[in-house]
Amino acid sequence: MLHAVIMAGGSGTRFWPQSRVSRPKQLLNLLGDRTMIQATVDRVSGLVPPERLLIATTSQLAAAVAEQLPQLRPEAIIAEPCPRDTAPCIGLAATLVAQQDPDATLIVLPSDHVIAPAEEFRRAVRFAAALVEERPGAIVTFGVRPTYPAESFGYIERGPQLPPGNPADPLAYRTLRFREKPDAATAKQYLEQGNFLWNAGIFIWKAATICQALAEHQPAMHARLRTIAAAVGSPQYAEVLAREFAAIERISIDFAVMEHAREVIVVDVPFQWDDVGSWQALARLAGSDSQGNTIIGRNIAIDCQGIVVHGDSDHLVVTLGLRDCLVVHTPDATLVANKHDEESVRQVVKLLRERDWQQYL
Amino acid sequence: MLHAVIMAGGSGTRFWPQSRVSRPKQLLNLLGDRTMIQATVDRVSGLVPPERLLIATTSQLAAAVAEQLPQLRPEAIIAEPCPRDTAPCIGLAATLVAQQDPDATLIVLPSDHVIAPAEEFRRAVRFAAALVEERPGAIVTFGVRPTYPAESFGYIERGPQLPPGNPADPLAYRTLRFREKPDAATAKQYLEQGNFLWNAGIFIWKAATICQALAEHQPAMHARLRTIAAAVGSPQYAEVLAREFAAIERISIDFAVMEHAREVIVVDVPFQWDDVGSWQALARLAGSDSQGNTIIGRNIAIDCQGIVVHGDSDHLVVTLGLRDCLVVHTPDATLVANKHDEESVRQVVKLLRERDWQQYL
Repeated sequence: MLHAVIMAGGSGTRFWPQSRVSRPKQLLNLLGDRTMIQATVDRVSGLVPPERLLIATTSQLAAAVAEQLPQLRPEAIIAEPCPRDTAPCIGLAATLVAQQDPDATLIVLPSDHVIAPAEEFRRAVRFAAALVEERPGAIVTFGVRPTYPAESFGYIERGPQLPPGNPADPLAYRTLRFREKPDAATAKQYLEQGNFLWNAGIFIWKAATICQALAEHQPAMHARLRTIAAAVGSPQYAEVLAREFAAIERISIDFAVMEHAREVIVVDVPFQWDDVGSWQALARLAGSDSQGNTIIGRNIAIDCQGIVVHGDSDHLVVTLGLRDCLVVHTPDATLVANKHDEESVRQVVKLLRERDWQQYL
Repeated sequence: MLHAVIMAGGSGTRFWPQSRVSRPKQLLNLLGDRTMIQATVDRVSGLVPPERLLIATTSQLAAAVAEQLPQLRPEAIIAEPCPRDTAPCIGLAATLVAQQDPDATLIVLPSDHVIAPAEEFRRAVRFAAALVEERPGAIVTFGVRPTYPAESFGYIERGPQLPPGNPADPLAYRTLRFREKPDAATAKQYLEQGNFLWNAGIFIWKAATICQALAEHQPAMHARLRTIAAAVGSPQYAEVLAREFAAIERISIDFAVMEHAREVIVVDVPFQWDDVGSWQALARLAGSDSQGNTIIGRNIAIDCQGIVVHGDSDHLVVTLGLRDCLVVHTPDATLVANKHDEESVRQVVKLLRERDWQQYL
């Protein structure tokens, strides 16, 4: 049966001052009424019932996540007591699921991406889950056909096509290689070559595939995850989780599992996708007016071009004679930046940490 | 005896969003702890006792003015029921003062200028008051020696020097002409010629000089002002003021009185002065750091040059990669502008009026 694991432990700093330590991107409604994690849960509803949905987050965020998702039972939220990268996170979810349902198929997906339309997403997941049933041990990833030479996404180089089945199904390929974010020239080349897809960071695989890979290549982690899983429902669970999870080495799922995969398949998915990694990405998704301005919130813009304003419906932001500026207003902090300097927002967060200005973090 | 009249009816829109209809520039503490009007009252204290100080303001602002100046008796605040330009305002003050003290000398000064040091200002006023005693019927103005070719000030062209008295006294000249704000080339020429002074908008004259000029050239206004003065202390005062003041024609003191002056003298004053007509002027006064940035309030600036930030001590404004920008934060509205576009701030206020967004006006 299909189970979903939504990864919601991120502590993104790129959306400061909207995003904060206690309110990272997945908990924000940067676009529309629903927060990113609410929209993600909405999207997987219809694929899996609530009892087959897990949210992996940090203990700091668990309460806020639960508050945003009142429909979930408390056990659906796995609160990691400390950050240990993606392998222990996904490994724990897989171990918990496999313990209940040894033949389970898992979709692991981020909580803070934009995907539309949701029905196309669900169709792709059903297709991928069927592929995994046919090929146990395989890992299926989702690749998005690039529409521009993005430098901010990872890419998947696809290899030979898998034998097509139903003509209505998306196309699937063997994966040749995962590629990190490219420079401008390389991104252009990828786009022209046509055999590169954006890596959507979504994986569909058997829970057993993950557990087996860990048992083989990360036996210490595997043992600790089994100890945690064995304590589920007992009064010692929290204590066991805290102790065992903290003792696990930090390692990414790429190194711990993916590298050892028998077969990695990429599905050329038929939906729109964005990881919304920056205010500019948000502007791209929200669209812009005839002056190239993206305005969210109450604003008066006079003689402005290419600006991004993100505020709220009460506080008035007036922008005058600006080019390519970013203005983000929150009740206790305002960011005004050159749009092309966005990477420096991380510097701000670093500086706030150094100055110990906790209230703005 | 010397009396002071502080004009505080201005409704400046250039400091929006700091300045609002109910809180114009004179009621703001743009620089330091004291508001402009408090600093002005501080400055004339020591020249005149509280009972010889009048504040002319509008009925909308009277309560706020009184709140900022708790040391004043209620009668010290003249609340104009409607705007009628400077002649009725100064004329009323002169009429009220002359009624009590027929030989009074009046200093009339704006409530929203920056002057330092205060002791030099008081020395200049005492000198000017002595000049007026010697030459009844004269009007003494204050001229400030230009330090740069300012286009935002009016100028006074000085003529022949008056016979010098005490060597410690400032120099005084006959006034040849008042000049409106010049263009850049003219301002440069004024500076080079050396016989032009900035018009500080401060006048010292006998109350009787003003009353006489009005009686001669504005008899209708003069009669109404006398009717108002006669009602002082009676239960009908507010009603008489409202009726008579509203019936007066709008006219400036320049046309109503100055043009008919027997003798206009300009004193080359030994203090620093600025009418703080813009955020840039404020930045000039507040000074800037090694990057040319002027920061008032809590700010982090990374890679910024020539910016002006005006906020408060709690709300954090982060500026990133900006050149020549102006950022003004208030609890309900934020302005982000190209520093050189400052004139457009007036457009914003106009637009807010058109949209009837009263809460931001």
